[in-house]
Amino acid sequence: MTLEEAKAKLTALQGKMSAYQHATSLIYYDGVTAAPKKTAENRAHTLGILSEEQYRLATGEETVALLEYLDENKAALDTREQRTVYLLLKDIRQMRKIPMDEFVAYQMLLVEADDVWHTAKETSDFALFEPILEKIFETNIRFAGYCAPEKAPYDYWLNEYEEGASMESLDRFFATLRAHIVPLLKKTQAAPQLDNSLIRGHFAAEKQDILSHKLMELIGLDNEHVGLSTTEHPFTISFGSHLDERITTHYYEEDVSYSMFSVIHEGGHALYDTGSDDSLAWTVLDGGVSMGIHESQSRFFENILGRSRAFCDYIFPVIAEIFPEEMRGHTAEEFYRAVNRAEPSLIRTEADELTYCLHVMIRYELEKRVMAGELSVHDLPAEWNRLYKEYLGIDVPDDKRGVLQDSHWSGGSIGYFPSYALGSAYGAQYLRKMKQTVDVDGCLRSGNFAPINDWLRERIWRHGCTYRPNELFEAATGENFDPTVFTDYLEEKFADLYGL
Amino acid sequence: MTLEEAKAKLTALQGKMSAYQHATSLIYYDGVTAAPKKTAENRAHTLGILSEEQYRLATGEETVALLEYLDENKAALDTREQRTVYLLLKDIRQMRKIPMDEFVAYQMLLVEADDVWHTAKETSDFALFEPILEKIFETNIRFAGYCAPEKAPYDYWLNEYEEGASMESLDRFFATLRAHIVPLLKKTQAAPQLDNSLIRGHFAAEKQDILSHKLMELIGLDNEHVGLSTTEHPFTISFGSHLDERITTHYYEEDVSYSMFSVIHEGGHALYDTGSDDSLAWTVLDGGVSMGIHESQSRFFENILGRSRAFCDYIFPVIAEIFPEEMRGHTAEEFYRAVNRAEPSLIRTEADELTYCLHVMIRYELEKRVMAGELSVHDLPAEWNRLYKEYLGIDVPDDKRGVLQDSHWSGGSIGYFPSYALGSAYGAQYLRKMKQTVDVDGCLRSGNFAPINDWLRERIWRHGCTYRPNELFEAATGENFDPTVFTDYLEEKFADLYGL
Repeated sequence: MTLEEAKAKLTALQGKMSAYQHATSLIYYDGVTAAPKKTAENRAHTLGILSEEQYRLATGEETVALLEYLDENKAALDTREQRTVYLLLKDIRQMRKIPMDEFVAYQMLLVEADDVWHTAKETSDFALFEPILEKIFETNIRFAGYCAPEKAPYDYWLNEYEEGASMESLDRFFATLRAHIVPLLKKTQAAPQLDNSLIRGHFAAEKQDILSHKLMELIGLDNEHVGLSTTEHPFTISFGSHLDERITTHYYEEDVSYSMFSVIHEGGHALYDTGSDDSLAWTVLDGGVSMGIHESQSRFFENILGRSRAFCDYIFPVIAEIFPEEMRGHTAEEFYRAVNRAEPSLIRTEADELTYCLHVMIRYELEKRVMAGELSVHDLPAEWNRLYKEYLGIDVPDDKRGVLQDSHWSGGSIGYFPSYALGSAYGAQYLRKMKQTVDVDGCLRSGNFAPINDWLRERIWRHGCTYRPNELFEAATGENFDPTVFTDYLEEKFADLYGL
Repeated sequence: MTLEEAKAKLTALQGKMSAYQHATSLIYYDGVTAAPKKTAENRAHTLGILSEEQYRLATGEETVALLEYLDENKAALDTREQRTVYLLLKDIRQMRKIPMDEFVAYQMLLVEADDVWHTAKETSDFALFEPILEKIFETNIRFAGYCAPEKAPYDYWLNEYEEGASMESLDRFFATLRAHIVPLLKKTQAAPQLDNSLIRGHFAAEKQDILSHKLMELIGLDNEHVGLSTTEHPFTISFGSHLDERITTHYYEEDVSYSMFSVIHEGGHALYDTGSDDSLAWTVLDGGVSMGIHESQSRFFENILGRSRAFCDYIFPVIAEIFPEEMRGHTAEEFYRAVNRAEPSLIRTEADELTYCLHVMIRYELEKRVMAGELSVHDLPAEWNRLYKEYLGIDVPDDKRGVLQDSHWSGGSIGYFPSYALGSAYGAQYLRKMKQTVDVDGCLRSGNFAPINDWLRERIWRHGCTYRPNELFEAATGENFDPTVFTDYLEEKFADLYGL
């Protein structure tokens, strides 16, 4: 095998991986958007077979020989090729430690889990979901043991979602947030509450859909490559490459802001993915590099940009045009205050910018304890409810609005949640840096996202997975990660809003 | 390899084939339902790779060895296993004659063709579609030459869509239809025309959607396994097995009957597919056996049942409940007459029961001549328009409503059209036989499809592909195929409607 032949094989391998990723992602997406109710068994059948093929492709002898050969000759590879070989070998060296039958059984379990979780959530019946969730946690512990027996299982998964993250680093990170956010929340609760009545009422889903498409266009999404659907829980997904991306939302007719900020959030993910350089399509370097960087884009768009006074100045008249009666007599400033009202609440995805990280902390703490064998899945609802009382001071009325609210666990993502908080914190540092060269408020006030997106595209999006998350972050900001930039941002914003 | 091992491998092989079929069908479906506009290149990339895998799976040495072994031991196989081996070997023996690179290139061509055809149809621009359609015809001729060099290319494809069909048999079949339908149409045109004004007007798509779901339930579709979407051109598709089936429709707000009968038509296909015995799931015997039998179900539901006086008696009050203003002062008999108005028209899928076969004849004649090299693709629009004038007496105003109207050619289906006419004709013989034991009109008048569906399920649906089309037809009706039963049916129905 010559080096050129090996490089051609590397391209072909990645093309095939993209094709399987396209097929399996689309089958998942179909399941939560359009599929008739009792078709999960059929999807499980297909995904069982395709994931077996994916596994063979990614870990087969031919693939390993190719990658080992390229790894031995890495001096002759360019930066991208080196990173590609590194990422594929890392996955292979891990995947080969998981027995194929267990890997396939897990994929099929997740299809079933999605179906069962939907029903369990609908009927607020944790007992229905419990046995399958137990299996998911148990499998994650077992797989971590195969892949990194020297590590605590939860540390293994935290590092998978964000290279470098560990219980030790996250305990410190969350301690910093807690030290600032808890007293700040107390002060806001003692101050007169912000009025959010203008975003509550009846907002027809069809009209909200018009707003969604306006927002997608406004923030710079290309509607010829990015689609929108509705699902129970909003998400973003790529089909084989950044050339076909879908976001989803959920319309609650009683609240105009939920879908609005969910579209901006998922839109941030989609901007990041679709911002990959076109030469990265159908390679493993295509799309976002880590969950933390991904969430840093989505939450940057949702909160730091979307919930800014400057953006509210721009978007309020747009909303008032779609909902003239509902917005009559109100101002952009009132809208700004309404969408920034901070208060303890039940649902993470509806939480305000200030309390949001407390929701994440609860999930982090629970996952940590279940993964360490210190808490049983059976006791999760009770512990969930106890922590919501302790951190947020509220009673959880049912599991539908409690432990069953998120799709992450049914999707097998244990260790994902902390990246939402990390991403939130990263964003404050982008903002500080960006403001040195871009008139961010001026852009937002005129609905012109181009200079902001250019800054992000140049420093983050176009690189895909070429650089490690911390390299990318440090190159973009010129600094190390410092969560107090985020807590400073929160303290300034909420002191102004609540007149503290 | 023992016989038991071989049988287990045969099951696994079919499971894999089903999985790839699921993935590729879903990618196609996504492309025409939800995908953003410029994502065709991405689908082409994935389908190119997956179809290469499908090809390898279906024609690889291991598969051939397995099937040849089972074929040598067929005395030890049951009827279903024998039929399975026969069908797979037949396909393999053919597929192995097509060079893999040409097969893959063709799959990618079809993805592009779908995209180009949509644009060409929208802009009524045949020149845009012409080069790709040329390639499609050329490939069909070439592939037929590989698979059956002893046959005329069109005969090869006709037989693929309906076992036993040939230009010789179809020339005779269409001659019989022509001999009866052309004079009958002339008589109806000389009589006072039926009034169809009550089905024209403005019928909101959302309300038509309610009607669609009512119709699906009424004819016996299980909404937990059969979904509905909207597309440019209605169709029915299975995802890997009969356990997940989708139909599509298109709402024209100016005509309440188009979508109504299209849903009943596609519903007939879906009833047939999903009526397969559950033990056939994920095998090659699952779903319908041929295009002709498939169309015999869809057109039986659409016309023989759906456009009967008895069904109109039942469905009219249902429609009047959804569209009370539009239907006020009208009767079921008026509705029956409106949906059976016969007149020459431009669009096949909107054609009435009487003129429909003339539309098919035109396509048959054109395909026959292009496949024989007697007509160039470039000259198709002019010939199309000339034949519409000759057979139907009308001028085609543009290619959008002419040669570009159907999706079959862009989908690579050359030789499919005649099965619509064959299917129409088969249905009249089912009706005559069914009436010996089932009070068909009584069932329809009370909206009770169960006895009708039981008759069809028992004799046709549940068998999937276990029997050859002609075996199935003859066992169901106890007769040979005789197209004059169909022309008798038409003559009786339209003489009554037009008072001839």
